[in-house]
Amino acid sequence: MSETLKVVKIGGKVAENDEKLVVFLDHFVQLEGPKILVHGGGAIATEIGKKLEIEPNLINGRRVTDSETLDLVLMVYAGLVNKKIVASLQAKGVNSVGLTGADLNLIQSKKREVNPIDFGWVGDIEKVNGGVLSGFLEDETVPVLVPLTHDGMGNMLNTNADSIAAFTAIEMGKSAKTELIFCFEQQGVMNNGAVIGNLNPETYEELKKQEVITAGMIPKLDSGYKALQNGVFKVKICAYDEISTTNTGTNLKLN
Amino acid sequence: MSETLKVVKIGGKVAENDEKLVVFLDHFVQLEGPKILVHGGGAIATEIGKKLEIEPNLINGRRVTDSETLDLVLMVYAGLVNKKIVASLQAKGVNSVGLTGADLNLIQSKKREVNPIDFGWVGDIEKVNGGVLSGFLEDETVPVLVPLTHDGMGNMLNTNADSIAAFTAIEMGKSAKTELIFCFEQQGVMNNGAVIGNLNPETYEELKKQEVITAGMIPKLDSGYKALQNGVFKVKICAYDEISTTNTGTNLKLN
Repeated sequence: MSETLKVVKIGGKVAENDEKLVVFLDHFVQLEGPKILVHGGGAIATEIGKKLEIEPNLINGRRVTDSETLDLVLMVYAGLVNKKIVASLQAKGVNSVGLTGADLNLIQSKKREVNPIDFGWVGDIEKVNGGVLSGFLEDETVPVLVPLTHDGMGNMLNTNADSIAAFTAIEMGKSAKTELIFCFEQQGVMNNGAVIGNLNPETYEELKKQEVITAGMIPKLDSGYKALQNGVFKVKICAYDEISTTNTGTNLKLN
Repeated sequence: MSETLKVVKIGGKVAENDEKLVVFLDHFVQLEGPKILVHGGGAIATEIGKKLEIEPNLINGRRVTDSETLDLVLMVYAGLVNKKIVASLQAKGVNSVGLTGADLNLIQSKKREVNPIDFGWVGDIEKVNGGVLSGFLEDETVPVLVPLTHDGMGNMLNTNADSIAAFTAIEMGKSAKTELIFCFEQQGVMNNGAVIGNLNPETYEELKKQEVITAGMIPKLDSGYKALQNGVFKVKICAYDEISTTNTGTNLKLN
């Protein structure tokens, strides 16, 4: 592939909102060249879980994936959210295929150790099969990745979507110029209401200390820096309706 | 492909029962040559629908797929049931990929006319993309088909799994010797407790008149005869734990 490959992660709040998803997909299909989409779906899983009386089981604020929760996220991520995106892309004339890590053995992961905390059916990524993705990209097909992987022993594992995006970008970056884009409802990484245009590790550490950058943003940025340190050409955090615009959002920089 | 392609449909009661599914998959992987699996999932959809307070909406005994029911079957068929099968096959060393009709534009269908009865988001198959399936089969990958298709305009459509199996077999039968196997909990088409070894259209009509063959079996057999009349080499109805055994079940015959 001579063009830059773009790996785009959309946050759950965009993927789950029909109107926002339409806007996002309009921008997504305008991105030139090969692309891979990774989506979440946590908020709608929580909502449907409530109806199914699956109580969120949290330890230190982090969700535990028990068997019932695994079934729930299988249904919501791989069924409901993924297929709506794939059908919408097809309607826009963009061929696409929805894939979990089990499909074509795309992403194998390891169930997280139960010590010190047993997070249940959660997987840490071991290997992304880049050849499978390259095959689809060569056919001008967009892989739409579900944040679920498998352990090779018949178990599906709940896996962080930001990590899937980062590991996928790193794997693809070995053979093609690859850009990683995290997009969501904000315009980028914010400081006092303004978008930070470029963020280097030093400023990142400082803003964490000042608690300007907190909570959910930290694992995303850590994934982004990991990608940047491992051969990914560019990492950007931006709004879901600005992904096809240049000079928007926050660019991660190594120095 | 020089070997016979086998298109295997498993009934919902097998796909949804963990123990039976394990037994079925053990037999399925023993089938030699290229193969395609089609599954249902209706009973578990009904069960989860009850918890979500999605009331089955029936007209003349047939389920109507309203928007809520479509979301339900997307979750259950494409998420829960399909991914458990794919992960299980991977654990047996059989590469596989779960696909709805929207994925890779595999099966396009037309929303059924609302007259005389509005069945909602139900699709009648228009086209199966055989080239997509051949590509996977050449890579020794088993396509695992979900009974959901799309209309090309962004809508997923609930589609009968027996019809998907029959249309897929007919399409593949144009370029390869293809066998269609419907398997379920019974040993075949039964008459007074005995399996009918061969069933021709004349006997079929007679047994329908006598009400020996009724209800759910009729659309399955109609799909089977349609396949047989349209180039499928062999159509067999048998038990889920006898698919890899020869001389079992009921063979449909044209005369």
